[in-house]
Amino acid sequence: MNMDKWGENLSDKKVSKTVIKRLPRYYRYLSELIKDGVERISSSELSDKMQVTASQIRQDLNNFGGFGQQGYGYNVKYLQCKIGAILGLNQEKNMIIIGAGNLGKALSNYSGFEKHGFKTLALFDIDESKVDTKRPIPIYSMDKLDDFLKENTVNIAAITVPKDYAADTAKVIVDLGIKGIWNFAQVDLDPLLPDDVVVQNVHLIESLMELSYNLEH
Amino acid sequence: MNMDKWGENLSDKKVSKTVIKRLPRYYRYLSELIKDGVERISSSELSDKMQVTASQIRQDLNNFGGFGQQGYGYNVKYLQCKIGAILGLNQEKNMIIIGAGNLGKALSNYSGFEKHGFKTLALFDIDESKVDTKRPIPIYSMDKLDDFLKENTVNIAAITVPKDYAADTAKVIVDLGIKGIWNFAQVDLDPLLPDDVVVQNVHLIESLMELSYNLEH
Repeated sequence: MNMDKWGENLSDKKVSKTVIKRLPRYYRYLSELIKDGVERISSSELSDKMQVTASQIRQDLNNFGGFGQQGYGYNVKYLQCKIGAILGLNQEKNMIIIGAGNLGKALSNYSGFEKHGFKTLALFDIDESKVDTKRPIPIYSMDKLDDFLKENTVNIAAITVPKDYAADTAKVIVDLGIKGIWNFAQVDLDPLLPDDVVVQNVHLIESLMELSYNLEH
Repeated sequence: MNMDKWGENLSDKKVSKTVIKRLPRYYRYLSELIKDGVERISSSELSDKMQVTASQIRQDLNNFGGFGQQGYGYNVKYLQCKIGAILGLNQEKNMIIIGAGNLGKALSNYSGFEKHGFKTLALFDIDESKVDTKRPIPIYSMDKLDDFLKENTVNIAAITVPKDYAADTAKVIVDLGIKGIWNFAQVDLDPLLPDDVVVQNVHLIESLMELSYNLEH
């Protein structure tokens, strides 16, 4: 029984990046199990479903205190809720998108983010001709960003501007106090920004190149 | 001098996933160096730029034969060309996009893929109302896919359909002979498809969750 240890463990343990990368996938599978009406699951059943070894699952979850009970397995709802909390999904996060091109607009139109607590408030662009305040999620001029951030709490800024503008854009929004950057530009922003800023990259072209490599070999 | 070993080494060595993941980033940095007119670079200079240790760089590149010369470093153009070849970028690859929603259209409008040899030929959608053959990259009905693939060589299909349709869509296109899947749907397609099909995932919501985790901790 180590169901309640997670509170203490969370703060004093450094969890590896690869474990963190797997958490959203646990969360997804557990959410599907809930939808299918499954109430509890053993690590070996979860292992079959997720194609990860049962010992890997136990090890991963032990980083946060375990959550399982010998001979019972995992309570699906409880585990999903805990992993959700570890991922910070129990607190809604507000997002803005800098760059109202095709990708920025596509992201703003995607409904899946809000379902998980990520709410897109607005897009911003330096191109005045893109300004459109009649959309469900409005597009404002970059000039308005400062005022907007005074009136709204924003946790995450997605950067979908062209590569050559990404670094300057990131510096501007970090100076305005944003701590989370979801970077779609083909640039490594981390070395340019203060340590307390979190950068998460989605490098589409690099993903395609990896696919290309695997097709060739 | 081990500049010419890569040809032999490529086929008989299993390269780790993490090394493969780093190759596109090497390629990007080398391309920038070329643009800046740099002709040769030492692994320690490259290391400073990329924030990877010099020994990591040497180790990574040794997987493919090395490419460097003691006391000289790397010839930037040569190395970029070789890594490009390893990534399969010297052969143009044709792509189609299944799902002409916001994300599918955004991907089709992005010019960066073609620059690296990934050419989007067409989009397909089951929704007839989305058909638009007057766009630069046309949108066809899914009914036309079979004929299209008889007339065109397609290496990669990007899947941008809603989650619940992704598995069936993937099976259809794999049955039609496509070997490379660039999957944007929130589903693990690999276990459902034959071993010779390569799946590369872009899970946007999982990327956001990872960002959320790092913001919280």
